[in-house]
Amino acid sequence: MRHGLLMVHTGEGKGKTTAALGMALRAAGHGMRVLVLQFIKGNRPTGELQALRLLPGVEAETLGSGFTWRKESLDEDRELARKGWELARTAIRDNRYDMIVLDELNVVLSKGLLPEETVLEDLRRRPDSLHVVVTGRGAPPALTDLADLVTEMRSVKHPYRDQGVKAQKGVEF
Amino acid sequence: MRHGLLMVHTGEGKGKTTAALGMALRAAGHGMRVLVLQFIKGNRPTGELQALRLLPGVEAETLGSGFTWRKESLDEDRELARKGWELARTAIRDNRYDMIVLDELNVVLSKGLLPEETVLEDLRRRPDSLHVVVTGRGAPPALTDLADLVTEMRSVKHPYRDQGVKAQKGVEF
Repeated sequence: MRHGLLMVHTGEGKGKTTAALGMALRAAGHGMRVLVLQFIKGNRPTGELQALRLLPGVEAETLGSGFTWRKESLDEDRELARKGWELARTAIRDNRYDMIVLDELNVVLSKGLLPEETVLEDLRRRPDSLHVVVTGRGAPPALTDLADLVTEMRSVKHPYRDQGVKAQKGVEF
Repeated sequence: MRHGLLMVHTGEGKGKTTAALGMALRAAGHGMRVLVLQFIKGNRPTGELQALRLLPGVEAETLGSGFTWRKESLDEDRELARKGWELARTAIRDNRYDMIVLDELNVVLSKGLLPEETVLEDLRRRPDSLHVVVTGRGAPPALTDLADLVTEMRSVKHPYRDQGVKAQKGVEF
């Protein structure tokens, strides 16, 4: 019987990725094996990958050189997304992990860079015990339908937007 | 000039504590010194404290023996909260940390176990560079007014509520 949950963190607010990282941390504390796959690489060095790798049983990977998000290079972005999903699919089928975090996959899906049905089918066929956490704005309805748990992070007050405060190391990235 | 932010995670959804843990992880990855103070101790062993303590620069503490949440023992609960806040205040004033997570403090405040104005005053007087993250349902309006950043975690779909699935190790605790 399946007990591995499919969890989605979406919405415009902060905390989607950090909550997934917190789940990775919590799982590692229980001796679980965790893979974090970052689909969208930030353009700043991130502290989280370095820290995640210090935890026993946790692997963390960032995909490729990053998306261009330009119409002119849509094919390149699609190819990058496809390679990224190959990695994810292999990790899902491998049965080596207890939890896989697919960070920012929602954005890749909502931009149409991956065939939604392929992704959903692979998620449906995941090993029974595997927990999957998908983050990012704009989770597609078909994904939230499939998910066991969906949380929307809603921004009530945001300093970078409301007060023009600059993003800060250790907080935003 | 102050650049340490006061951040509040509230709402009925999941991810309030895990997002704070993710921030602690991220901060640790940047070599920052972090203290996590759990005001409400779960009745199950939690993976996160064990994992947090593996990260360099991170300290994690759980307060006392836990609240009773009973009218008959309101004075005991108030005393426990007071001692907890003494610890928090000392940590805030010490200037030894770059980030302090006050996990579930919102609940303690909303139940009236601590004098709100004392807490707010101590938070206002924190060192300029100190980031503080407060989590828990029912953040008091005076706290969200003071905060730089407020995120509401909104439950869109919850298996433990909607489908009667049992809470699971590594996911819920």
